[in-house]
Order: sequence, then structure tokens, then C-alpha cells
Amino acid sequence: MKFEGYSDEALKSLISGSRFTVTYRIRGTEKEALETARNMCVEQTVEFPAEHIECNVIQSDIIGQIARISDAGDGWQRVVISYADEDASAEFPQLLNVVFGNSSLLPDITVERIDLSDGQKKIYSGPRYGVEGLRERLGVYDRPFTFTALKPLGLPAASLAEEAYRCALGGIDLIKDDHGILNQNFAPYEERVKLVAEAVRRANLETGGHTAYIPNVSGSYKYMADRIALAEDCGAGGIMFAPGLVGFDMLHYCSQRTSLPVIGHPAFLGCHIDRGRGGIDCACLLGQLPRLAGADIMVFPNFGGRFSLTEEQCMGIRKMASEDLGPIRTMLPCPAGGMTVQKIDMMREFYGEDVALLIGGSLFTKSADLSGNCRKFREKLVSGRN
Amino acid sequence: MKFEGYSDEALKSLISGSRFTVTYRIRGTEKEALETARNMCVEQTVEFPAEHIECNVIQSDIIGQIARISDAGDGWQRVVISYADEDASAEFPQLLNVVFGNSSLLPDITVERIDLSDGQKKIYSGPRYGVEGLRERLGVYDRPFTFTALKPLGLPAASLAEEAYRCALGGIDLIKDDHGILNQNFAPYEERVKLVAEAVRRANLETGGHTAYIPNVSGSYKYMADRIALAEDCGAGGIMFAPGLVGFDMLHYCSQRTSLPVIGHPAFLGCHIDRGRGGIDCACLLGQLPRLAGADIMVFPNFGGRFSLTEEQCMGIRKMASEDLGPIRTMLPCPAGGMTVQKIDMMREFYGEDVALLIGGSLFTKSADLSGNCRKFREKLVSGRN
Repeated sequence: MKFEGYSDEALKSLISGSRFTVTYRIRGTEKEALETARNMCVEQTVEFPAEHIECNVIQSDIIGQIARISDAGDGWQRVVISYADEDASAEFPQLLNVVFGNSSLLPDITVERIDLSDGQKKIYSGPRYGVEGLRERLGVYDRPFTFTALKPLGLPAASLAEEAYRCALGGIDLIKDDHGILNQNFAPYEERVKLVAEAVRRANLETGGHTAYIPNVSGSYKYMADRIALAEDCGAGGIMFAPGLVGFDMLHYCSQRTSLPVIGHPAFLGCHIDRGRGGIDCACLLGQLPRLAGADIMVFPNFGGRFSLTEEQCMGIRKMASEDLGPIRTMLPCPAGGMTVQKIDMMREFYGEDVALLIGGSLFTKSADLSGNCRKFREKLVSGRN
Repeated sequence: MKFEGYSDEALKSLISGSRFTVTYRIRGTEKEALETARNMCVEQTVEFPAEHIECNVIQSDIIGQIARISDAGDGWQRVVISYADEDASAEFPQLLNVVFGNSSLLPDITVERIDLSDGQKKIYSGPRYGVEGLRERLGVYDRPFTFTALKPLGLPAASLAEEAYRCALGGIDLIKDDHGILNQNFAPYEERVKLVAEAVRRANLETGGHTAYIPNVSGSYKYMADRIALAEDCGAGGIMFAPGLVGFDMLHYCSQRTSLPVIGHPAFLGCHIDRGRGGIDCACLLGQLPRLAGADIMVFPNFGGRFSLTEEQCMGIRKMASEDLGPIRTMLPCPAGGMTVQKIDMMREFYGEDVALLIGGSLFTKSADLSGNCRKFREKLVSGRN
């Protein structure tokens, strides 16, 4: 059909010609995957029967285009689809929508990676600090970062501040709120952030160290700006978002506006992980998307811990965090979940030096001397491998 | 271990005793599921080795409690876990976090439903209008609502306004932007919303009808407030969010602040759907969560269309949209995705009268007379079943 008031010339003049690509795995034979991909080209853009659109420029530019197809093994095909930059507006939610909005509702399709155009890399410009910037900011060179979390939920703010003080005395590099600690009445956000930031500042003065405290701001939109402002005012060393809970756009928006490093947490993202029936490849979900949204560090469940990621999946995340994306800085991967000091050598071997090792519970329970436990954690990294 | 500064009395005084429950399906034998559930009670709250927490009130109140377990068939168990209201703060992201934050990262666990406490029902108070309020607002009684979407992406705002005018002349009840249309330079948000709202107003004056235009605001946090304000100022009849793209909290926050009906769209929510290895049950994801977040209408992929939901899943959504939740109003389910006028009788039979039938592409392509197509769609419902 013809659409009233539409003109090819007018539309063409508004299209830059710049395109970005998404690589999908699609289950099926080449023929089946091509049919699925052709439907996706339409589904992710015009969502209208393509044969009824008598508009040349919509056909040539707006609808997705299959760029390549190849065998991905095990009965899956790898298909690259390109979309006009303009299809995705210039906002993270609509980027996600073009990548996998409606198609997420279909089984047996997995998003493997996104390759942004140069123009989009200016919008989704990645971490403010990246690995090198974090090293300078925290004075951590030639070794992995040490990281822990304040726990457990239920403690008053003063107790969490005391924990933070001891961890900072022990020379830990990064301390975050547990991601479930937000604004519960037992440790309200404002009181907690003030007390913990002050405790860490006091310890840093004593040790000459640079321990950074990272409050969790994974709460409502309503309070976001005030909470980040308070964290900045109190001298926090970063802020943490779980993009599964607050959206990747919130992470992106805030990362562009705060001068603090931004830490991502994987809570509620687990369902996106491809478990054989489609989804988002771990490396894209926990490596690429948070990096594009501006996370300097991304926490993810390590293999061999309480969760179920494989070595291959974790290596994929590490690679996506550090692959060359031109102007976009690298992101520090942070494996976590049931980690212990005993596993450090193995983790260092696996991830290399550009990693933050997050040890939570076991650092607290190893002995009653929390500062000593942190000191040993740090020394194990400073002194090199055993 | 003992935690410095912690006191059972102080914590107890801050806990209301009110608890909410989450019903999970967990794969395994009863013994295996109980072990998983016990770990979840800890994982979703204190995330700290429970045997090391020498705090009576954290043990008794903060950590989740298994309330019931029963056989769910096919090798799955149904387990109900209760959590203190306080665990989840009073903010949607942290409610989601307690429900399924870290546990989403584990396979073979499915969230079936959430039963809020009475206190939480005041915070997550549901739709402003609900089905009855929408009927009054739109003057639609004793029949399903008719609904369509402005398409395709690539048209200028004036063309979309012309489409809306014709649909409204044909007496359609609801017209939304396609969810992929946001602020592309071919039809920028402000220009589009003004033109479309004016076109619909003009048609309503001519017909005496109440067609509502629903702009899509599933974009960045940065522009959200301004876009909603513009929609209100222009006389839009609702606003549409895709909570998968912008977060359930954004939907919740905005639904409490706008006087317009709120429509939810399922884009990017698909990965959460349980496809056999765990996730969120369709009924909870597309029926309960959007309702609690304040959606008056929720769009979801109908069975038998382009997507893969089953009749059983769609019926689950319908039931969750309308089940008795005390003070929380019912939500109008809106099956969509490859729907046609031919399917109306079947859909009406299946869903009943409290449903919005969203027909997109096929309404435009049925014939060149868009008003006539809408009129037939409406008449088919007004005149009753064939």
C-alpha cells in the first residue's frame, strides 16, 4: 500500500547511511535460519507486512538487511543483520529494542554481539575510566584489584561502616554495598553512605591508601539523582547499578553524568542468559552491554562458584570487556559468587591481571580478624603468584 | 561470627513482622528442591554463609523462610518462600531483586507468582483505571476494546497522523505508536505527538467518539518526564512503556504520577519467559508484574500468531490480569502479534469481553479504506458474535 504523505526523497534526506550490525545465532538449517532472519529484519524495524510497503527507502534503508550467514555448528546458524542507525533513535532502550525487542519473544534466537557504527560509539561511549583510569585513580598497578562487599542485610549502618573501616585498613581496593542493601530502615541509604564513606576516608588517612567505597543505587528512579549526588558529596569512590533491576539506560544515563566510576551488578539479568533455547550470549550480556552503557567494572558469576556459568562463558565476558572497540575504553571484569582466597592463583591464571576479584562471605568468615583477612588477600596479589 | 554494633533488640524493633511470599517451581526431587530453596532463602537476602551469622533476628526474620513445598509434576517442585517486607525496601527494583535477583542466574528455577503483603499493596497499588475505569473513560461497554498501532517506522509524523485520523474516524478505541517508533528524525516525538493527538481530537469531534492516542515513551530516562508532560498537554489518551526496555520501576514510577492510562509492551521481556530451564512464568511476567507496576493494559504475544506462546500461557496471563488482589484493580490483557479480524470470534471466545484486541498490520492491508477496515473491526464486536 501507499502511505499518505510519504516521500522517498524526504526520507532519504534524513538517513545518514550509517548502519550497525547485530550477530545472532539462529537454530535451524541455513534455509530455516534465513527465513527467521528475514522475518527479524521486519519484526525489529517496521513490524508490518513488508510486501505491503510500497516505499523504496523504507525497503532499502529502514528494514534490516541480512549481511552474512554461516554455519555456527550444532544445528545453529550465525546471521549478521544490519540496521540503520536511525532505526534505534539515539537512546539505549531503543537500541535494545532494535537488537532484540520483539525477537526476544521467539525461541531459538541468541544475540551474540553488537557492532556499533562510529556515530553510535559517540553516544554509547563506554566507561569514563576503564581499566587504565581505575588503576590511576586507585593506585593499583601490575596486579588484580581486590574487592569485597558489605554484608549481611540486617546490620545497622554503623556496623557496616565498621566493616568497611576494617576492610580499608586491610588495604582492600574496592568495597561495595551488597546489592540487596539499598534503603532498608535498618541501614537507610543516607545514614549508611555517610557513615561508610567517612569510615573509609578515616582508614585511608591512616594507611595512606585509596580504598573506594561504592554505594548501591539500584533503587527507584524517584531517588536516583539525589542518591548519586549524596554519594558524590560524601566522597564515595563509585556507584553500583544492577541494570537488570533499573535498566541499562539508567546505567548509561547516570554514567554520563557522574564523575564517579560505575559498577554493574548482574542481579535479575540471569533470565537473559542463553540456556539452549535462545537469549543473549553471556559475553554480550555481561561483557558488551554493560561496557557500552558505561560500566567501568562489571560483576558476574564466576565459574566454579555458586552459579552455573562455564569457563568458556566467563572467558567470553573477559574478552568482550577488553576487546578493541576503538574509542571505547575497556571494562574491568569482576568474577564473583562463592570466591575464596584459595582460588586467587587459579583466577589470576585464568583472567590475567586486568580483573577485580570479589570475595564476599569467605573473607569475613576466614577468621575474626577482618583487616588481617583483607591484608592477606591483598598480599597474595602483591607478592605475585605462588 | 558476631557483628560489631549489631543488636537483636534494635533490629527487631525495625521489623513489622509483615511478610510477602514468592512461589517458585524448582526442578528436582523434593530433597533437591529443598536444598535449592534453602540456598535461595540466603541468596536472595543476606547472601552470606548463614551458619556464620550469629544474629537471632537476622536468622528469624531477614533470611527467607520456606513456607510450603509440594510436587508440581514432571520432576519439578513448587516451593513457597516468604520474605520480610523490609528485605525488599519499598522500591520496585529491590522487590524484583528479592524475588529473583541472584537466583535468576541459576538454571531450573521459575518464579510462578508473588503474593504481596497488605502493606506492599499500598506501594504497588496497581492500575489507576483498571478495566472498569477504562470502560468509563472510553465509553466502551459490554464488548472487547479495539486497538491498533501506527506503522510503519519510516513514515513522517504527518502520515502517522493521517493514519490515526482515519482509524479514529472508523471508531477504533485505542491507537498506539508502534513500540519501535520513539524519536527518530523522520517522526520526532514532539512533532508526532502533537500532530497525532490533534488528528485524533479532530476525528473524535466529527464522530462524537472517544478514541485514545497512546504515544510510546520507551526511551531514555533523560527525556521521560518531558515526554509524558507533552503527551498530557496534547490530550493523549495514555502512554506506553516497554518495561523490558525501561524497567518495571519506570512504569511504576510514571504510572503513579500521570493521570493517563498506562499501557505496557512486552519488547525485550522475552528472555525472562521460562522455556524449560527456568525463568519467570508467563502469567507472572506479563500478567502480574505489569499489573503491580501500574499498567492498565498489557500487550502480549497471542497464541497462534507470529510468536510462540501457548494457549495455556495466554490463559495464565488473562487470569493474573484479573484475579482478585483486594484493592488492586484489574488489568486489561491485550493479545497481539499477527492478529486478524478473522480471529476475533475465536479470541473473544477465549478471553471473554474484558480484553483489548490489537490488530496492526492486517488492519492496514485488508483494504485501502483504513477507516472502513476499522469500522468493520468495531462492528464485528458491537454486533456480537457470529
